[in-house]
Amino acid sequence: MTDTLSPSATAAYVDRSGTTHQLPDAAADAQVRADDRGHVFHSWSAQAKIDPMPVAAGEGSTFWDYQGNAYLDFSSQLVNLNLGHQHPDLVAAIQQQAGRLATIQPIMANDVRGELARRIAEVAPGDLDKVFFTNGGADANEYAVRMARAVTGRRKVLSMYRSYHGGTAAAISLTGDPRRWANDPSDGSVAHFFGPYAYRSPFHATTEAEEAQRALEHLENLIVLEGAATVAAVIIETIVGTNGVLVPPAGYLPGVRALCDKYGIVYIADEVMVGFGRIGEWFAVNHFGVTPDLITFAKGVNSGYVPLGGVVISDRIAAHFDDVAFAGGLTYSGHPLACAAGVATFEVFERDAILERVRDLGSRIVEPALRAMAERHPSVGEVRGVGLFWAIELVRDASTREPLVPFNASGPDAAPMAELAAACKAAGLWPFTHFNRVHVAPPLVITEEELVRGLAIIDEALEVADRYVA
Amino acid sequence: MTDTLSPSATAAYVDRSGTTHQLPDAAADAQVRADDRGHVFHSWSAQAKIDPMPVAAGEGSTFWDYQGNAYLDFSSQLVNLNLGHQHPDLVAAIQQQAGRLATIQPIMANDVRGELARRIAEVAPGDLDKVFFTNGGADANEYAVRMARAVTGRRKVLSMYRSYHGGTAAAISLTGDPRRWANDPSDGSVAHFFGPYAYRSPFHATTEAEEAQRALEHLENLIVLEGAATVAAVIIETIVGTNGVLVPPAGYLPGVRALCDKYGIVYIADEVMVGFGRIGEWFAVNHFGVTPDLITFAKGVNSGYVPLGGVVISDRIAAHFDDVAFAGGLTYSGHPLACAAGVATFEVFERDAILERVRDLGSRIVEPALRAMAERHPSVGEVRGVGLFWAIELVRDASTREPLVPFNASGPDAAPMAELAAACKAAGLWPFTHFNRVHVAPPLVITEEELVRGLAIIDEALEVADRYVA
Ligand SMILES: Cc1ncc(COP(=O)(O)O)c(C=O)c1O
Ligand SMILES: Cc1ncc(COP(=O)(O)O)c(C=O)c1O
Repeated sequence: MTDTLSPSATAAYVDRSGTTHQLPDAAADAQVRADDRGHVFHSWSAQAKIDPMPVAAGEGSTFWDYQGNAYLDFSSQLVNLNLGHQHPDLVAAIQQQAGRLATIQPIMANDVRGELARRIAEVAPGDLDKVFFTNGGADANEYAVRMARAVTGRRKVLSMYRSYHGGTAAAISLTGDPRRWANDPSDGSVAHFFGPYAYRSPFHATTEAEEAQRALEHLENLIVLEGAATVAAVIIETIVGTNGVLVPPAGYLPGVRALCDKYGIVYIADEVMVGFGRIGEWFAVNHFGVTPDLITFAKGVNSGYVPLGGVVISDRIAAHFDDVAFAGGLTYSGHPLACAAGVATFEVFERDAILERVRDLGSRIVEPALRAMAERHPSVGEVRGVGLFWAIELVRDASTREPLVPFNASGPDAAPMAELAAACKAAGLWPFTHFNRVHVAPPLVITEEELVRGLAIIDEALEVADRYVA
Repeated sequence: MTDTLSPSATAAYVDRSGTTHQLPDAAADAQVRADDRGHVFHSWSAQAKIDPMPVAAGEGSTFWDYQGNAYLDFSSQLVNLNLGHQHPDLVAAIQQQAGRLATIQPIMANDVRGELARRIAEVAPGDLDKVFFTNGGADANEYAVRMARAVTGRRKVLSMYRSYHGGTAAAISLTGDPRRWANDPSDGSVAHFFGPYAYRSPFHATTEAEEAQRALEHLENLIVLEGAATVAAVIIETIVGTNGVLVPPAGYLPGVRALCDKYGIVYIADEVMVGFGRIGEWFAVNHFGVTPDLITFAKGVNSGYVPLGGVVISDRIAAHFDDVAFAGGLTYSGHPLACAAGVATFEVFERDAILERVRDLGSRIVEPALRAMAERHPSVGEVRGVGLFWAIELVRDASTREPLVPFNASGPDAAPMAELAAACKAAGLWPFTHFNRVHVAPPLVITEEELVRGLAIIDEALEVADRYVA
C-alpha cells in the first residue's frame, strides 16, 4: 500500500501566488537535524525516543519536508492552523504591524489590541464584553480560574475526566488526561467529573437524552458532595478536543448553565481548540445556545501565527474588578503583533464566509465520507463530530467496543495506531491520532479536492486497522 | 517645573531611516480609548482606576502618544525592549520569517528554532546545552521547576522574598512580593527565604562580605529545617529585578551553588529580566562566575517583539529526560516567528557589540550620574546596579533609612512616588517606579545624548522627593 500511495517527492513547490520556491537540500536538512538534536528540548517527549522531522515550507493545507515530500495537514498542526499555512492576509498583517509597532506593554492602550478585543466581544454570546489577553491556552485557563475564585471567594474547581486544559500548574491540575499523572500532586482544589460520552456511557445510558440527563445528575451530585459553597467554577471544553471530539448531547450544556446558576458557580467554557471556526461558529457555545461566564480561547484566534490566547469576560465578572485589582498578568498581555494577526483573522473569516464554509464542508463532505467508512470498515466503532472537527473511534470488536489499542497505550501495545499513522504519512497525509482515534481537523481553508483526497487516504489506511479486528 | 520641562508636542516624527511619519489625530485617540475602556481587561489592575494611554508609535528609545508627546523610555516597556522600538533588523527578521514559515508545531524540527537554541547554548555557561522554549517568563519558571522536581524526585522549592517569577499558579507561588498575596494559598511546596540586601540587611550585617556570609548561613539553615531531602530546587533572580535591583555581594551566588551541590538541589537562575545584555552579559550569572543547573529567560531574548521565553538545561538534567518523557508542553513551544527575532538579536548584539556598549555606558555615564544624584539629593538613600540596570532607593531620612513611601503603598500613601513619576512624564521621560524606588533600565541601544538627557530629567524630578525629606 505504501508504494502505490507514496507521494512523489519534489524539489520545489508553487505557492498560491504562483511563485515557485526551491526546497532546501540535504545539507540543510542535516544542519536542521543537528541543531535540533543537539539543542532543542521538545514538549511531552522522551528526548532520545523522538526523531523530529525538519519542515521546510508550508502553503495552505500542505507542508513539505526537506526531501520534498508533501503532507496534507489533517491535524492543522496542533489544531491551531485554522487559516492554513502562510495565509497572505495574516502574513501581510504581521509584516505591516511589525513595521508599525511590534510591541507595547500591557498597561498602554493600543489600537489593534482594542480592535481585536472589540471584535471578539461582538461575536461572543451574551454580555461577554471584555477580553484579557494571554500568550496561549494554558494561561488563559489559569487566569479564568483565578477570576472565578476572586469573584466567588471559593476555591474548588470541577473539571472533566478526558479533558486537556494546558501544561502550567493550575491548567495541568484541571486536565483530566494522562498528561496530568506525572505532574503536581493536587492540593485538593480540583475535583474531576465524568462528562457525557454516549458511545462509552459512564452512566449506563442507552440514548443521548438519557446520557445528557444522567451526566447532569452526576455533576449535581458531585457539586453537592464536594460542597456547593466551596465550588468556584466548572470548566468544560465545549466539545472535548484531543480526548475524543466528544460532542455533548442536546440539553447537556444548558443543564450545566442551570446548575451553575443554581449554585452560584462560574461556568468557564474552554474553547481553545473549538473556538474561532473549528465547528463553523465563532464560539462553539453558540452552536448549543448557552452563555458561559468566561470563555477561554487561543489557537484559532490568529491560527497560531503569533502566540495569543485570552479570556472573554462577562460584564458581571468584569465589574468585580472595577475597584478590586485583578491579581494576574504577564509581560506580553495583548501583544500588538499577535492582535494584528487576530484582526486579520476576523477580516478573512468575514470576507471568505469561513463559518458557512466549515458547516457546508462538514455536512456535505466529511460526514457522509466518515459514515461510509464506518459502514465499510469493521474497525470503525463510531464516527462523530461537527464542522471540520471529527473523530473516528477504532475498535477491535464492534459489539464489545473494545478499543483498537488500550487507553494511553505506548510501545508495542500502540502498534496498530502507529501503523495506521505511518500508512497515512506514506500516502501523503499528516494525521491527528490519539489513543484509539483518528481525528479529522484540517485547516478551514482546505479545498474540496484536498478534503476528498485526504479522506480517501484515511479510508484506505483504515485497512491497516481492519486487520486487527477479531 | 512641569512647564519648563514639558516636551513640545509634535504631529509627526522622523524614524532612523529618515522617513517622516504623521502621528494619528484626536479622533483616532478617542477610538483607541473607547475600544480599550470598553473591551480590554488589563493585568494587575482595578479596571476602573486606570486610564491607559494610547501609544501611537515607537522608535529606538522613544515612544509617542496620540497628542504627539514624546517619552524617553527609561523602563524599556517592562524591561524587555532591550533593542528598543522598531529595531530594523528585528523587524526585518520577523517580516521575512512571516513570509517564509510563520509557525510550525513543537514536535517538528525547524531551522530558526534550532539555530536560536544552538546560539543560546553557545553563550550559556558550563554544559547548559539544551533549550526548552516557552511563551514567556512565567511558563519558563513553571517548567524549570517541573524539571527539577522530576530529576530530584523531591517537591519543595525555595525562593526569595522580594522576588517576582511570573503570574501563573506555580510561578506566582514562587514569587516573593505582594502580587502573590491575593493568590493561591500555598500547598506547602514553596518556602521563602531572605536574600542579601546590604542596605536593609535582614541579617544585621555591616559589610557586604558579612551580608553574603550570613545570607548563605540563613539559606543553609532553611534547607536543613525544611528537610534537605525534600528540596528540589532553589530559584533566584541573579540580580533581583522589579523588587529592587539587588546585586548580590561577591561570594553569594557561588555559595548558593555550593549549597545546592552539597544537598543535591537544582539551582535555577531566573534571568527573565537580567539576561540578554541588561547588565552587559549574555547571562548575568557570567558576571558572577557561577553555573546554575537551569537558567530561565524571556524578554531580552528577542526584546519581546514576539512572545518567547525558555529554559536552558544542563546536560545532566537533559539526560534524565532522554528515556523518561518530560511531562510538560505548550502549543507554541519554539515558535519560528519568535525564534527568528531571537536569532536577529544575536546578530545585532554581535555586530554592534551591545554587551561592551552596556558595560561602557553603565560605568562611564550612569554610575557617575547616579552617584552625583546621591550626593545632591537628601532623598536618595542608595544607588546600586550594573550595566544598564540601576535603582535609586528613596528615603525620608538618610540616617534611619525610612522609605520615602511605605512598603506596597497605594493611594495617598504613595503620593510622593506618584508625584515623582508625574514630574518625569511631564518632562518627557517614562520612568520605572516601584515602591520607594526609581529604576534606570533604558533600551541597550539608547544614545549617549538620550541617556544623559534622561538622567538629567530624573535628577531634576528628584527635587519632588527631596521635599518629603524630614
Ligand atoms: C482545550 C484546550 N485547552 C487548553 C489548551 C492549552 O493551550 P496551550 O498549548 O496554548 O497552552 C489546549 C491545547 O491543546 C487545548 O486543546
Ligand atoms: C525575573 C522575572 N521572572 C519572571 C517574569 C515573568 O515573565 P512573564 O511576564 O513573561 O511571564 C518576570 C516579568 O517581569 C520577571 O521580571
